[in-house]
Parts: sequence; structure tokens; C-alpha cells
Amino acid sequence: MTTYQEPYHISTQILQNFVFAIFNSFQVPENQALISSQCLLEAELRGIESHGVARLSGYLRLIEKGRIKVPSKPYIIHESPSTASIDGDAGLGLYNANYAMDIAIEKAKACGTGWVAIKNSNHFGIAAFHAMKALEHDMIGFSFTNASPLVAPTFGKDRLLGTNPICIAVPALKEHFVLDMATSAAANGKLEIAQRKNQLIPTGWVLNKDGQDSNDPNELKNKGVLLPLGSDKDHGSHKGYGLGAMVDILSGVLSGANFGPWVPPFVSFLDPITPSPGEGLGHFVGAMRIDAFQSVDSFKKNMQLWIDTFRNSTPIEKNQRVIIPGEPEALMKEERLKHGIPLHPLVIQDLQEISKKYGVPLPI
Amino acid sequence: MTTYQEPYHISTQILQNFVFAIFNSFQVPENQALISSQCLLEAELRGIESHGVARLSGYLRLIEKGRIKVPSKPYIIHESPSTASIDGDAGLGLYNANYAMDIAIEKAKACGTGWVAIKNSNHFGIAAFHAMKALEHDMIGFSFTNASPLVAPTFGKDRLLGTNPICIAVPALKEHFVLDMATSAAANGKLEIAQRKNQLIPTGWVLNKDGQDSNDPNELKNKGVLLPLGSDKDHGSHKGYGLGAMVDILSGVLSGANFGPWVPPFVSFLDPITPSPGEGLGHFVGAMRIDAFQSVDSFKKNMQLWIDTFRNSTPIEKNQRVIIPGEPEALMKEERLKHGIPLHPLVIQDLQEISKKYGVPLPI
Repeated sequence: MTTYQEPYHISTQILQNFVFAIFNSFQVPENQALISSQCLLEAELRGIESHGVARLSGYLRLIEKGRIKVPSKPYIIHESPSTASIDGDAGLGLYNANYAMDIAIEKAKACGTGWVAIKNSNHFGIAAFHAMKALEHDMIGFSFTNASPLVAPTFGKDRLLGTNPICIAVPALKEHFVLDMATSAAANGKLEIAQRKNQLIPTGWVLNKDGQDSNDPNELKNKGVLLPLGSDKDHGSHKGYGLGAMVDILSGVLSGANFGPWVPPFVSFLDPITPSPGEGLGHFVGAMRIDAFQSVDSFKKNMQLWIDTFRNSTPIEKNQRVIIPGEPEALMKEERLKHGIPLHPLVIQDLQEISKKYGVPLPI
Repeated sequence: MTTYQEPYHISTQILQNFVFAIFNSFQVPENQALISSQCLLEAELRGIESHGVARLSGYLRLIEKGRIKVPSKPYIIHESPSTASIDGDAGLGLYNANYAMDIAIEKAKACGTGWVAIKNSNHFGIAAFHAMKALEHDMIGFSFTNASPLVAPTFGKDRLLGTNPICIAVPALKEHFVLDMATSAAANGKLEIAQRKNQLIPTGWVLNKDGQDSNDPNELKNKGVLLPLGSDKDHGSHKGYGLGAMVDILSGVLSGANFGPWVPPFVSFLDPITPSPGEGLGHFVGAMRIDAFQSVDSFKKNMQLWIDTFRNSTPIEKNQRVIIPGEPEALMKEERLKHGIPLHPLVIQDLQEISKKYGVPLPI
């Protein structure tokens, strides 16, 4: 093993080339391997490490188990001028959602908006990567996906919903507004951080298997559940549950994918429930041309005014101003493009094992 | 004053006729008065009394002040095959949003989906009334609106967002899924109930004017703020803030209406801020044809399976099963269509004053 200083920083391009080469070595077609590697690297750049290269081994295990099909080729099964339904051919969601977004953008060019539902797909990485494709076309982008069931609905204790993210990306004059949020109170990644640090978590993130409050970050390993955004009924958990449900319905029911408890788990050691009402898991993406509503210039000007107004509003604490959705991620990306991506020693070890196992060199 | 037993129940039709006659007496065109009266009555039927006839006097005060224009006529200012932008002509939002929804439905018939942004409008009542229009066409309906600023963003203490609702209505085999939720932790109506009962409210609903936690339901009268869904940063208030922002951007910035702190207040004694970047307040509505994605039969069957699965999942407490979004409101409507609408004595008094002032008989 190469020695390195902690935290070791690696250049985006080197890490992306490695991910590309690994996917490509698995018969993933070149364009799919490229998009998929970009998607994982965008997560690293934006500081969402839980959805970055740390997940690479997980995707590979699903490929080896045959749950992610390679090679695969998504295709349109039904369409209208502003919509399409896609069969993801059981391939990488990282690519499928991006392919779907391209179609949404083409439809938006032709008739104002484009909306694409994808079934028979797999985990799609960070939602923002897909929604943000719309920005360069002066469009507003949307992306949603359902995911491994971990969240219980209000009053319930079964795992029926994933952390089902909602993402919207909106262009302004000098920057973007990018909301990319799990519809649970806390994403699973936050539990993992508490586990590593051996810390308790706040009440309102999880319930234990009996549906009681717990502060143990390991509760999900003991049949516990994540709570929806809002945490409890008094604080609006029925709203978080409703939003997770909306994402499940658009991504799962409308696309013909699985939904609710039938969404296939990300981890390869848990088998999907059979029989199931749909195929794979599902995504839903959209693009709206701004000039299908009003002038792009005027919109961007007002959107910048919106951002500046919120950013410069009165903070509660002098040293913590109001943050614009997507702002910390954009700053992180700027920083990491300059100085490289810091890798956790465990992630380096994981990547080195992958490198060795599949004979793809990793220059670390 | 007529004597009555408490709670006095009035028939839907009699109450609707009264509201219609009042609006009509104000030069509101007949079709607009009809839709507007239906919208307020639908709120009563669904048990959302905060958005029902108790608001009638508020709309009338805005009309008398010239902030709601009568007569008015909304019109399309820009469109594409799947989109339109509408100028609400400063008229009743209750009607404008419904008119916009009709356009969205027509566009969805023609090209799969329809999306309409409305500026220069006013308070649109309950969001569900508009979104649910899509259901009878086997479409999924959406409605959003911005509203009087009362909510502070995470880390801030200025009132920058309304309770900005998100509504989605989805048809199933035997019933509907209707999510209609404020993006704040608690809607203003809940504070009003606590005020009437002289009760404290849970921590996490409001902050006082200094940005500190408070349990006083009167905090909004003392320059306090509502908190976004999630309540605090640890529990995801940045997500509730992000969702309220999304609604503000779609309804306000994209339509050309006001946004953020400039959204005109509902109460007539507070004047809108001038100058302002847009016109009136704004809505955003949409309709998606289900068969633009897949067969309606198969979708409704799976949607019913979704509903039945969640409803029959394991409850935490035996006597409180999991609830489907919109289910309590649908049951309430069934009940009230049979037995009439119960009116609070203060609301009856308010309606009787309106009746007397404008010479429109109210048979109570």
C-alpha cells in the first residue's frame, strides 16, 4: 500500500478516470461509464461523500449479483410531446436518469416542458447531478427517485419509503439555486457519521423496532426506521411522509417501477421482495424552459434578487447568515476543483482493493 | 339575530348560494363568483375551516380597498404547447387558479402535460380545490401558491416566505391521494386554535422577534415568525425552507408576481411593500395525463395497491392506523354533505354582519 498523508487529496480527473475504467471493465458501455463516473465525482466535488466513490464497491457487487445488468440499454416505451416513459433495462441508474434528463430537455425545447418517468432502474447517485443538466439550457430541472425502504409513515413502524429525494435546480444571474433534499428528517449518511464517532443522535431521526423514540445511530441495524421530515405528528411528520409518498408515486407507480416496500434494497446481501408489482426502482425527471413562461433575462435578474434578498436578510446569530440551497455545495466544488478531493483512509483502502481485484491501476 | 343550537349546521347549497350572491353583488362576474363560492365551500366540506367562509369578510375588505379588482378578467400573456403564463388582472385568486387549471388540463390533453404560472393574483383558497380538478380527467394535478410572508428561513429571523403550500392530487381505483400541505412546521390556523383555547404551542412552531424559541401562540402578533417544516437545523428546517422557496420561485419569480418579502399580505390593514419587483401574488398549477406515461387502468390499480399497503401497514398504536394523505378530508366531506356544515358562532355572527351590510339575505 502506498503511504499517504491524511487526508489524502486526489485530483478529480484521476479519480474519475479510475471509476470510468472500472465500470468500463465490467462491460458498461463507454458513454454510460463516462456519465456514471461523472455522477460519482460530482457527489465528491459537492461534498456529498455518502453518494461518491465510497459507493463504487456497492454498485460493483450489484453488477456481480446480476441485479444491475451490463451491458444494458435504456429505451423509450411510451411518449407524448411533453412526456416519455423509459425502461432502464436494469442498468445503472447513474446513467439512466441522465439519459432520461436528455430526453426531458429535448421535449422542453420542442414544447415548453419535458417529463420522463423511468422504471427498471437502479440507484441514481445524487439527484442534483441530473436536475442540474437543465441549467445550461436556461431551464429549471427536477429529479426524484425512490430508494431502499427505510422510512416509516406517520403512526406506522414498517419501512415503506426510501429517503426519496426531491431536487430542483434553478438558474440565476450569478449562481444557481439547487435544492437537493431527502424527505426523511435525516439522511442515512448522518447516522453513519454518528456511528463512526460513537455519538448519540437527536430524538426525531429514528424510531426503534417497536416504534419508540431512540438516540442510537445503530437503530437501523436493529429493525428500526428513519422518520419522515417533521419527525413527529406535532411537527408535521405527516408532511414529510406525504412528500416521500409523492416521490414514490411519481418515480415508482407512474413509471411502472416498484414502490413502497417493494423497492429493491441497495445492499446486495438483501434480496428484493418477490413477487413485486413493478420492475426495479424508478426515477422521475423534468425540465421546464424558462422562456416558455417569461423572458430568461428578467427571470434570472429576479432570481438573483431572490437569492441576494435571502442571503442578506437578518441572521439570528451574527456569525451565521442565511444560506441559499446549493450554496455550500457550490463552494465546496470550487474548493475541491482547485485542491483535489480528500479521501477517507477507509475509502482509499476500499478503492485499492477494487483496483487490485479488477486489475485497474489506481495511482495513489 | 336568529337563535340557533350550537354547533349550528347549514346546508352546503344554502351557504354556497350566499357566498355566490355576495361576490356577485360586488360586480364579480357570475362564473367567477360561482367558482369562488365553490372553492370556499370545498374548504368547509373538507374541514379546512381556516380557508372557508370565515375568510369571506377578508376577501371583501380587499375588494373594498381596491386590492382585489372587480370586475376582472385573467388572460394569457405567453404560452407554449405545454405551458402558459397568465395575468390574473388583480382578481380573485379563488377563480384565477381554477381558470389556470382549466388551461393546464387542456394543454395536458393536447401534449401530455400542462403547466401554468399566474401573476397579479390574490389568495387562492385551498390548494386542493384546484389540483383536484385534474382527477376527473385521469390526470395528476398540482397546485402551489406563495402567500403573505410569515416564515423565516433557517438561521434567519425575517419574514421572507408564506406558508406556501404544495398540493398533488392522484387518482386511484376507489379513492384519491391528495397531499395538501403548508411548507411551514405548523399552519397559521393551528396557532389561531391555540389562541382561542389559551393554550401553549409546541417548541418548533414559532420564534419570537429575536429569533428565540417560544411557546406563545400570539408570537406572530409581536413580530415573531413561523418556522419552516423541520423546525430546527438538526431536524431539517433547511428542507422546509427549501420547499417553501421552491414554491415561491415557481409561483412568484417564474410567473412575474412578487416573491419573498414583497408578497402582498392577506390582511387589508397591512399595505403591500412598494416598490416591488412583481405584480400581486402568484400561483403555479399543473396537470399530467396519466396515459401520457402508462395505461390508466394499470396505474390506478397500482395506486390503489399503494394506498392499501400503507393503510394496512403495522401501526405503532393499535388504535391509530396509518393515514393516507387526503383521507380525513374525504371522510369529512362525505359526512358534511350528509349532515351540513357546522358553523362556529363567531363565523355566523360575521356572516350575519356581511348579510346585513350588503343586503344579501342569509337564511340562518
